[in-house]
Amino acid sequence: MAILGIGLIGGSVGLAARRDQCDGVREVVGFDPDPETRRQAIELGAVDVAADSVSEACAGADLVFCAAPVGELTALVRSALESVGEGTVVTDVGSTKRQIVAELGTDPRFIGGHPLAGAETSGVSNARAELLEGARWYLTPTPTSSGVLYDRLQRTISALGSRPQAIEAAAHDRLMATISHLPHVVANVLVSQAREELSRDSENMPEVGPSFRDATRVAGSNPAIWTDIFDSNREAVGDAIEMAGRRMLESADLIRTGDRDAVAEWHSAAADDRRLVSESQLTDGPLRELRVTIHNRPGALASLALALGEAGVNITDMALYPANDMSTGAVSLWLSGSDNTERAAELVRSLGHVVVIVDGGGDGNG
Amino acid sequence: MAILGIGLIGGSVGLAARRDQCDGVREVVGFDPDPETRRQAIELGAVDVAADSVSEACAGADLVFCAAPVGELTALVRSALESVGEGTVVTDVGSTKRQIVAELGTDPRFIGGHPLAGAETSGVSNARAELLEGARWYLTPTPTSSGVLYDRLQRTISALGSRPQAIEAAAHDRLMATISHLPHVVANVLVSQAREELSRDSENMPEVGPSFRDATRVAGSNPAIWTDIFDSNREAVGDAIEMAGRRMLESADLIRTGDRDAVAEWHSAAADDRRLVSESQLTDGPLRELRVTIHNRPGALASLALALGEAGVNITDMALYPANDMSTGAVSLWLSGSDNTERAAELVRSLGHVVVIVDGGGDGNG
Repeated sequence: MAILGIGLIGGSVGLAARRDQCDGVREVVGFDPDPETRRQAIELGAVDVAADSVSEACAGADLVFCAAPVGELTALVRSALESVGEGTVVTDVGSTKRQIVAELGTDPRFIGGHPLAGAETSGVSNARAELLEGARWYLTPTPTSSGVLYDRLQRTISALGSRPQAIEAAAHDRLMATISHLPHVVANVLVSQAREELSRDSENMPEVGPSFRDATRVAGSNPAIWTDIFDSNREAVGDAIEMAGRRMLESADLIRTGDRDAVAEWHSAAADDRRLVSESQLTDGPLRELRVTIHNRPGALASLALALGEAGVNITDMALYPANDMSTGAVSLWLSGSDNTERAAELVRSLGHVVVIVDGGGDGNG
Repeated sequence: MAILGIGLIGGSVGLAARRDQCDGVREVVGFDPDPETRRQAIELGAVDVAADSVSEACAGADLVFCAAPVGELTALVRSALESVGEGTVVTDVGSTKRQIVAELGTDPRFIGGHPLAGAETSGVSNARAELLEGARWYLTPTPTSSGVLYDRLQRTISALGSRPQAIEAAAHDRLMATISHLPHVVANVLVSQAREELSRDSENMPEVGPSFRDATRVAGSNPAIWTDIFDSNREAVGDAIEMAGRRMLESADLIRTGDRDAVAEWHSAAADDRRLVSESQLTDGPLRELRVTIHNRPGALASLALALGEAGVNITDMALYPANDMSTGAVSLWLSGSDNTERAAELVRSLGHVVVIVDGGGDGNG
C-alpha cells in the first residue's frame, strides 16, 4: 500500500493499515513532499518505509491512497496513475468528488473516496488509527471502474475499520453541500449580518444568545481548506445556498402575513424534519434532550457528566448555555433511548439539579 | 410588588425580590389564573400572598410585573393599568417589545421590559432567584414614560441582580430578530431542506455532520412560544430573514464565479466578524478554542472537565463531535483568556489526550 501525503488522514490510514488486524496489507510505503513529515511518519509508525518520490512510493503498490489538500488532489492522482500498472487501484480522500471524478473517473483504476473523519486537527502528529473506526467512507466508482479493483479498495477500507458506501459523485457533492457546506455558508452570513446590524444600533456589540452561538460556531473556519471546498463544489454549493436563500425569502413572506396557524404549522414541520434527520444515524431509539440547570463554576459540569458516566449513560451531543454572568447556566444533553433518558433524569435530580426532559429540543429564550 | 403570571420568570422575580438583599420590596403579591400555581408559589416562597384576581393583586402595589406568554401580555398589561393609580409602574417581560409599546407606550406608567433569562425550562417549580443574576434586562421607555417610575423600575431590576439597559422598542426587536429569531428560522430552513434533499438521493437518511447539528439544534423548538414571537415581531424578523436570504443568494453567486481570492476574502471576513460578535460579552481576552480528541466512552468527558475544573479553568462554550460509531470523538472547549488556554492545553495533554489550540474556530470536515 502506498500513501501519498502523510497528514492527519494519510497518517491515520497508515497506522490503521499497520495494525495486525489489517492483514491484507504487507507493507505501507509513504511519500510526503516535506522531509520532516516523512521522518515523523516513520517515527510514529504511520509507514514502514518513506519514499523520496511519488513514483518510488507507487512502485509495487496494489493500492494507492492520495491524501493531499483538495486543490492538489487531481494532479497528485494523475501522477500516481502514471506511476502504477493496470492492477493497482488509486483512490483519494478529498471532501468533494464530482470535479476529480469528471477529470479522472474514466480511468478504470481510479475510484474516488471521502472518509467522514473529522479534520478537527491536522498533521501526522495528530494521526491515529481510531480516527477511521466506524467512519462512513464514501466511494464514487463510475461505470468504467474495474470491479476487481473496487472490491479490493472496499475490503481494505472495511479492514481499516471504516464503513465504505458507494455513491454517485454528483450525489455525494449535493449531499455534502446540504449537510456540511451550506451550514458553513449560513454561519458566515449570520455573523456578517450581525456585525453590520448590531453596530448600526449601538456602539457596543450586545450579547448574543445560545442559538446564535450554535449557528455561527464554524463561521470563517480554516479559510484555506474552505476556499478549496467551495471552489471544487461550487455548482452544488451554489444550488444549495440558492435553494436555502429562496426558502428564507418564502419564510419571510410567511411570517409577514401574520397567519399564525400557517406559521405554527411550518415551525412544527421543522421539528419533525429535525427529528427525522438527527435520528438517521441512531439505532437505539429517538434522541431525547435533557435540560439541566447547573451552577457554572469550574467542575460542576464535570461532576454531572461523571455521575452519568458512572451510571453508563453516554452523551450523544451537548450544548452549554451559560448565564450572562457565567454564574449559572443550563446544559442540554442529547441521549438516545428513552429508558436511558428517564434514568439519567432521575440520577441528575438526585444530585439536586433541576432537570427537564424536552421533546422538541430547542431554545425558548426569544 | 405585584406579579401577574407566576411561571419561570414571574416566580424567579418573586424569589429574588423576597431575598433580604432586595430591601426596597415590602411584600410580593402574586396572581396566576391557575389556582394550583398560586398554591405552589406560596409553598416555594415565590410570593408572600396569592391574590384571586388581577385587581386584587394590583391593589396597593408600587410596581407590577406582567409575566404572561407574549400573546396574552397586551391584555394583561392593559388590565393591570386599569387596576392601579398614577404612582404605580407596570412592566412586562415579553420577548418582543415594539407591538406592546405601540399599543400601551403612551401611558406614562407602562415601561416595557425583557430579561434575557433562559427559558430553557418553564413553570414556577423551576423558578430560582439566580436565573436573573447578571442577566441583561432591556427596558423600553418612551418619551411619555414617567421619569420617577422608570427610576423605580430600573433600581428594582438592579436589586433583583439583573443589569437593566434602556433601548428603543424597535431597536430591541431588530436586535432580537438578528441574534435570536433569525437563527431559529435558519435552523428550520436547513432541516427542511435537508429532509427533502436527502430523501431524494437515497432511501436512508445519511449521517449529518457537526456543523449541521450545531446549526439546527433549535429547529422547530417550542412551537407555541415561537409562533407568538414570530407573530409579534413579524416586521423585524421578516426584514432580517429577507436580508439574510439576499446575502445567501449573493454568496451563491460569489461561490459560482470560482473567484478563489474573492471567496477566501469573504470567508476570512466572516472569521473576523465572528470574533467581533462573540467577544463582545467577554472582558478577559479573546475566545480561544481547544480541540481535544477523547474516547467517547461514558465518563471520558467528565474526567476531562473535572481536571479542568480542579485547575480553575471555566468553560464558556462547548461542542461535542462524536465519531460515527460513538467510540471516539472530538470536543471543542471555548475558554476566554489566552493564559488560561495554554494552561488548560498543557493539563489536557498531561492526561494523555491529543489537544490543539485553534484560532479561527470551526470545522474542517467538509
